[in-house]
Amino acid sequence: MILLNTTLARMAGGAYGLVPDGAIVVNAGKIAWVGPKGALPADLREGEEIDLGGRLVTPALIDCHTHLVHGGNRAREFELRLKGASYEEIARAGGGILSTVNATREAGEEGLLAAALPRVDALIAEGVTTVEIKSGYGLDVETELAMLRTARRIGKLRRIRVLTSFLGAHAVPPDYKGRAGDYLTEVCLPALRAAAAEGLVDAVDGFCEGIACSVAEMERVFDEAKRLDLPIKLHAEQLSNLGGARMAAGRGALSADHLEYAGAAEAAAMAAAGTVAVLLPGAFYTLRETQLPPVADFRAAGVPMAVATDLNPGSSPMNSLLLAMNMACTLFRMTPEEALAGATCHAARALGLHDAGTLETGKRADLAVWNVEHPAELSYRFGFNPLFRRYVAGAE
Amino acid sequence: MILLNTTLARMAGGAYGLVPDGAIVVNAGKIAWVGPKGALPADLREGEEIDLGGRLVTPALIDCHTHLVHGGNRAREFELRLKGASYEEIARAGGGILSTVNATREAGEEGLLAAALPRVDALIAEGVTTVEIKSGYGLDVETELAMLRTARRIGKLRRIRVLTSFLGAHAVPPDYKGRAGDYLTEVCLPALRAAAAEGLVDAVDGFCEGIACSVAEMERVFDEAKRLDLPIKLHAEQLSNLGGARMAAGRGALSADHLEYAGAAEAAAMAAAGTVAVLLPGAFYTLRETQLPPVADFRAAGVPMAVATDLNPGSSPMNSLLLAMNMACTLFRMTPEEALAGATCHAARALGLHDAGTLETGKRADLAVWNVEHPAELSYRFGFNPLFRRYVAGAE
Ligand SMILES: [Zn+2]
Ligand SMILES: [Zn+2]
Repeated sequence: MILLNTTLARMAGGAYGLVPDGAIVVNAGKIAWVGPKGALPADLREGEEIDLGGRLVTPALIDCHTHLVHGGNRAREFELRLKGASYEEIARAGGGILSTVNATREAGEEGLLAAALPRVDALIAEGVTTVEIKSGYGLDVETELAMLRTARRIGKLRRIRVLTSFLGAHAVPPDYKGRAGDYLTEVCLPALRAAAAEGLVDAVDGFCEGIACSVAEMERVFDEAKRLDLPIKLHAEQLSNLGGARMAAGRGALSADHLEYAGAAEAAAMAAAGTVAVLLPGAFYTLRETQLPPVADFRAAGVPMAVATDLNPGSSPMNSLLLAMNMACTLFRMTPEEALAGATCHAARALGLHDAGTLETGKRADLAVWNVEHPAELSYRFGFNPLFRRYVAGAE
Repeated sequence: MILLNTTLARMAGGAYGLVPDGAIVVNAGKIAWVGPKGALPADLREGEEIDLGGRLVTPALIDCHTHLVHGGNRAREFELRLKGASYEEIARAGGGILSTVNATREAGEEGLLAAALPRVDALIAEGVTTVEIKSGYGLDVETELAMLRTARRIGKLRRIRVLTSFLGAHAVPPDYKGRAGDYLTEVCLPALRAAAAEGLVDAVDGFCEGIACSVAEMERVFDEAKRLDLPIKLHAEQLSNLGGARMAAGRGALSADHLEYAGAAEAAAMAAAGTVAVLLPGAFYTLRETQLPPVADFRAAGVPMAVATDLNPGSSPMNSLLLAMNMACTLFRMTPEEALAGATCHAARALGLHDAGTLETGKRADLAVWNVEHPAELSYRFGFNPLFRRYVAGAE
């Protein structure tokens, strides 16, 4: 298959890697050749030619941070808060993360799957071919496993690659209140071992924050990840600076995520380790934060920045990666090129993937074809989906 | 036709006008009966019964403020700004409203239509059945007429009701720089008369701001509207308080729009006149404004608040009314009920419509059926479209 009559944003080589009159040769699900049509070798010019009508092709999008498997929703809490209810009133009405934990425990695997599929389908509809999905609303062994099994099933039921992150260290459940260490010993670490044994874990994550786990607690989880030979990542420096990003970088984490309260020290540590900064403007927007992540520090240090939805029922009920890209520009002042890199090549890196995220020879032919002329349009117009077609490993 | 097995949000009578196990009888495109299924009169129980599977029905959405007919896009300007270009550099690169004026003049009616249809289709896909479309990027007689003709054609080509607003007083074109009065005399008022004579004008609008038209200039335009017996509305108090909203209310305007710099005095004048406050969070978000519209003053004075996309290529390239509802909540602290009223009953009122915006006997059967349980979910989750089905005057 040869894709012709297209502008390419290869997302490699700078300036979007733009190729005005480009061609892509796809063979066995991979990119066999990519470049200017005029340079296409004659011996590769066989197979079906597909005229893309001058449309833009980018690497397919990658949403590298979601909590899209969860039970229930928090619309009631959203409404109560806007009606002026206090934190206590919302807690009494059953709000907060524990309401999602309860709804997730009650949903069962079939319920979790049924609720998650429309969310996945909405991402697929905007050109996403790889999605990361976390556990973390079970906080008991059984439900953490159910969430991860659901994530794996999504990858079988839909034409999308799913990478899982074990997030047992997301919060301490009420029955372990004040006994976080016991929660790790009795629930979180056994759940991690069981999930890993079942092949359900692609990475190990945690929420390092005053309201969740300390750095020392996260180190226990990451020690276990190391024994299991699993890569790590961390929600860090979202609401305060506890040192989580530096600790995670010191252990070679794939990514540190959120990072509003990070600065030059974190950027330096992450650059040295090759840790990706995953920026999540949907949560910043929903929580009406004012502390901006240190984009200039990341740029200066050369830290790759990814952008993701953080799709979750509490702090980011946002189901659009294109919208996250617009918010990364509008709220975080990233450029449209950085936003697109954040949802393609840098998102791939945040997931430890070497076979996706750019249009380069040998990569998977995961492609998005857009009804736009220039890649900046993808971040500029919002609440609008200009996807024309998606290819997953070369298949439409 | 009888719609059954549904929760109704009638948007009349308070608390969303919720009816848990509701029924709607549709006859000749109108709502013949609506209420609890148990109260459905036996003699109305004829015709096809449609089981909505427990889904929520609301009045179809109404986007009461858009500039969706326009040529070109401003992605390049968006990108330049994020790369740190100065105002002058952007102006030299051809940015700003004049770039849209040039692109609109060059597009021609066919080009305008082709560009506008995907924008309209995206609104239709989220349950919109009525949309307002403004002129204002022509700033010459011919192109103002072309924009309005395009808007009328959209209403014929798509199953959506289009209301037009003449917005010749949107900006003063460069050839009339410093001669706004001459622009009104020579271009704007003749264009308005010609458009009205052709039946292209449902309301007369203007942009009352330091960078556009003064109150006195707008009064000339509104005098002409009065002679033509056309209702008026006004972009007012967006960036400063010039007194536009009070002037417009004094003339019985349908709506005053934006209103970030309005306060209690404007709220009182608008309440007395029955003028709707149309709030436009997409522009507030895109421009990163910090001055919030006086929602508490509007509530206290009893001013109906509408919510719209302001879909335009410069300050609000947002193509989703559901997203505008979420932003009205998140950014303006409106409640989900106010946001939904803003996109239904109050939006109808901002357009002078008495036959839409609520589920009441005698209204048009313009309905949206949603895959949600409670209407608060429509504002809560964002970047997601839960529409199941749309009825336009009773037709699917
Ligand atoms: Zn997260
Ligand atoms: Zn406007």
